Parts: sequence; C-alpha cells; structure tokens
Amino acid sequence: MCELLGMSANVPTDICFSFTGLMQRGGNTGPHRDGWGITFYEGKGFRTFKDPKPSCRSKIAELVQNYPIKSKAVISHIRQANRGGVNLENTHPFTRELWGRYWTFAHNGQLSGYEGLHSGSTRPVGQTDSELSFCWLLNRLQERYPEPPQDMVGVFRYIAECCDELRELGVFNMLLSDGEYVMTYCTNHLYWITRRAPFGEASLIDEDVTIDFQQETTPNDIVTVIATQPLTDNEEWFRMKPGEYNIFHFGELTDGNHDALEHVPYAEAKPRCQAPTEPLE
Amino acid sequence: MCELLGMSANVPTDICFSFTGLMQRGGNTGPHRDGWGITFYEGKGFRTFKDPKPSCRSKIAELVQNYPIKSKAVISHIRQANRGGVNLENTHPFTRELWGRYWTFAHNGQLSGYEGLHSGSTRPVGQTDSELSFCWLLNRLQERYPEPPQDMVGVFRYIAECCDELRELGVFNMLLSDGEYVMTYCTNHLYWITRRAPFGEASLIDEDVTIDFQQETTPNDIVTVIATQPLTDNEEWFRMKPGEYNIFHFGELTDGNHDALEHVPYAEAKPRCQAPTEPLE
Repeated sequence: MCELLGMSANVPTDICFSFTGLMQRGGNTGPHRDGWGITFYEGKGFRTFKDPKPSCRSKIAELVQNYPIKSKAVISHIRQANRGGVNLENTHPFTRELWGRYWTFAHNGQLSGYEGLHSGSTRPVGQTDSELSFCWLLNRLQERYPEPPQDMVGVFRYIAECCDELRELGVFNMLLSDGEYVMTYCTNHLYWITRRAPFGEASLIDEDVTIDFQQETTPNDIVTVIATQPLTDNEEWFRMKPGEYNIFHFGELTDGNHDALEHVPYAEAKPRCQAPTEPLE
Repeated sequence: MCELLGMSANVPTDICFSFTGLMQRGGNTGPHRDGWGITFYEGKGFRTFKDPKPSCRSKIAELVQNYPIKSKAVISHIRQANRGGVNLENTHPFTRELWGRYWTFAHNGQLSGYEGLHSGSTRPVGQTDSELSFCWLLNRLQERYPEPPQDMVGVFRYIAECCDELRELGVFNMLLSDGEYVMTYCTNHLYWITRRAPFGEASLIDEDVTIDFQQETTPNDIVTVIATQPLTDNEEWFRMKPGEYNIFHFGELTDGNHDALEHVPYAEAKPRCQAPTEPLE
C-alpha cells in the first residue's frame, strides 16, 4: 500500500507540516520503503523531488521538510512497490504536458488485466500499472479534446468517468492536478480536510509535532489537505467513499459526486500506523 | 547569456565538481541570476532540481553540490533571461516523454521570428523561445517517426538537420539527452572534454577547488563533460564550431560532423568569468 498526500490552497502555502508526518511513514511508522516523491506547482511551472530510497532516511526529503516551498497545488506519494521495480522511473508522482499545462498524477492501489489499456501517443516509461493508467487517461483526454478545452470542470467530470472504468480493474485511489485544480478519486482510502479561519492547533499522528495554524496563516487563507489516512488526531477529516471524486480549486471544493460529507471520528484516525494487510500499492 | 553543462559517462558518475564551478557563475563569478536547473538520469528515470533563484545562493543548489547523485547522463543550465519571465516554467532544462523515454533539453542563445514554428501536439507551457524550439523538435520527431525508431544515431542526425534550421533563426547552442545519448549542437559557444585513464588533476576556473580524478575513478571510467566555456584551466577542452554537432554515448563520442577536433589553449579558457557583452540567453 502506498500513501498519497495532496494540497490545494488559495495562497502559496508550505506543506512542511503534513510532509513531516507523511515522511515518517516511509520506513519508520509505516512500511513504505520503496521511494517517495513530491511535486510543487509554482505558477504554471513545477518542481519535483524524488528518491527511490525510504523517505525517513532521505537527504532530499530532509531538505523538503526544512526548506519551505510555497505552492497552491501539491501532489506527493510514498511507495510500497507491488507492480514494477524499485527505481526512479517507477517513482510517483508522474508529470506530463497536455494542452500546454503540466499534469501530475499519483496512484494508490493495484490494477489487474490492465494490459489492454490503449496507450496512444503518450507512452509509459516505467513498468507500473499506475503510470500506464495515467498515460491512458491523458490519451483519452487528447482524443476527446484535441484542442485545449475551456470548461475545466467538465474535463474533470470526464476524467471521473474514466476513473470509474479503471476502478473496475482493481483499487484506484488517485490524486491529479493541472496546477490549478486538484482532483481526488477514491476506491477505498482517501480523506481530506479544509482548514480556514478561525484556525486552530493540529498535532501529527506520526510524530510528536504540533502546529498552531493561526500563527502561520492570514484570515483569508483556505487550505485543503488530502491524504490516504488522516495525518492529525485532533481535527475532523472527511472520509471519501468508493467511486467518489472531488475537485478542489485553490483550496475550495468546487465539484464532486458525494451525497453527504462524512467526518471521521478521532478514534478511527488513530491506529493507522500499522503495517497494512492488503496488497495495495 | 546562459551557461550549459552536460555529462555523458559509461559508469554512474557524480558531477559535483563541475557543478560547483558552474554554480559560481550564477550570480557570483558570472551574471546568470535568473535561475538554474539540473537533470540527472538514473536508468530510464530522471530527477530534476530547479530554482528560479540565483544558483550561488540557492539551498537546493547547495544540496546538489554536497549530495553526490550518480548518473550516466546529466543536463544542466543556468539562466540569464532574455525571452520569457523569471519563473519556474521558464527555467531549463525541459523534459518531455517521447516513444516511452524522457527527453531533456537545455538551450543557450536567442532566436527571432520563431513564432512560425509549428507546435503540434507537444505544446510549450512557458514563454521562452527555448521551450518552443524543444517542442518543435519533438513534434518533428513524432511526425517523422510515429513509432519508436531503432536507429537512434539516425534519429540524432535528423535532429541535427532540424537544428540547422533553428540556427537560421539566431543563436542555438543545445544539449539534448534521452538518458542514453547526450547530443550537443553548437552555434558559437560549446566546449567538451573526455576524461579517461590515466586520470590527472583538474582545477576549477571559478573556484579554488582542485580534484584528483585518479582518486575518484576506476581505470575503465570514461566521462565526457560539455560546457559553454571550459570549466578547468589545466586541461585541454575541444571547441565546437558553428553548425557542429556531437553525439556521445555513455561517455564516448560516437557521431558528429566535425572535420578535425580543435583544442583550446589554456590562455583562452582563462578570461571567461567576465560579464558577456552579447545579448544571449
């Protein structure tokens, strides 16, 4: 099983706090020893830091934790490999250009019978089902919209339909961003929280770190964090349901197919730092 | 004027020594204050470190200098902007996927009348003539070879023909790699050196650093370094001529269109740490 972490915000925000929690799961409080990566958008550009080494022992992860890079859209992933070797070409997130913007993708789960996914002109470089499904999504988009579309929410709704097809092949939890929007798609494990004024304190589950967001923010800040499992134990996270998607635009939930939002009780968030029993990426 | 740095090697080799010299030119011994970037291939995957800040003051550049990442193909660039704002989407190198491999590109120079370059399905994200010419090259390749070609030297020869067309639009010095091959194309400033046994000492022009390669290498290592200007003052670098291209494969020169190789005398390598007078990127 892999872990996903995403952020969508209306002002450039650093993700050091959440990233510190996530990185502990890379070989320390969690079993995800097979590499990690994080992509920060800054304007239309992006920076990715990646390492096929465990995140809890990575020099580069240490830099990312201590050097605040401010961004409005972030996608991060730590990996426990199932399909594809432990190497850089199989390390998420994956980024490709489409319609003159960079798209970034990270996946948690495992697919079967995916060999039939038509690959088109965007081809995978590595051997994971994850990268293949990303290429397939981009090829579907390019077929449907040969020219850059205007209605981006419509585009993400179409992506959600494609994700429904991928979910038929197995477990498909996804984070996807074009730098402006951050989209989530859930098969079984995905949680999110939107923080806004009045801000309070939050304490990490995976490390003895507490942050007072009021000291770090202005009253207009809106910041959504998405994760495979809640990262803090004193806040209420929303749990996504199978087949649910959400589209965040600069921190705000702007579209989704949920009937009602469901909070996770604290007690359920607590015991997540155990080795998973499911054979998921 | 920007500065290019490339490496091609037959064993995974760190580029810390050359990078240390280059980074001083980013605002210290040179005027290239508008960002820097470096791409390391590792197998079929790659890692890019980038910053729109001057390299001589960048925390990330410091990490890259001190944390040896070993690679057989490296492309690096420091920027003095002419076309396009100082931001991440305009920071070289640029990487795109074609035929299931990642291609990485960095450019030094400035083009005029490039608006007519047909852009095809690979589109630029930023505003530089450099990224546009990279997209144009990839679109030309995709048109000519819709399926992944076998004869890669033939592909690079075709790229050289396309570069001849770009050179008609202005100054086009280029580094390009698919992770296996490193290609150089020269309009006016590009030098290279191949180091192999018996290895000697080298001392940087830009900083008071000397390295004894014999301590760092094995007798079978072959390492080629390419740069806008020689980086060391006690070795003989080859100077490329206008319209010349070279193709390096794991350290060895395997193809090119030069009549004779020309060494640069030490005296000429020395005075490079002055602000350039030409309006080049």
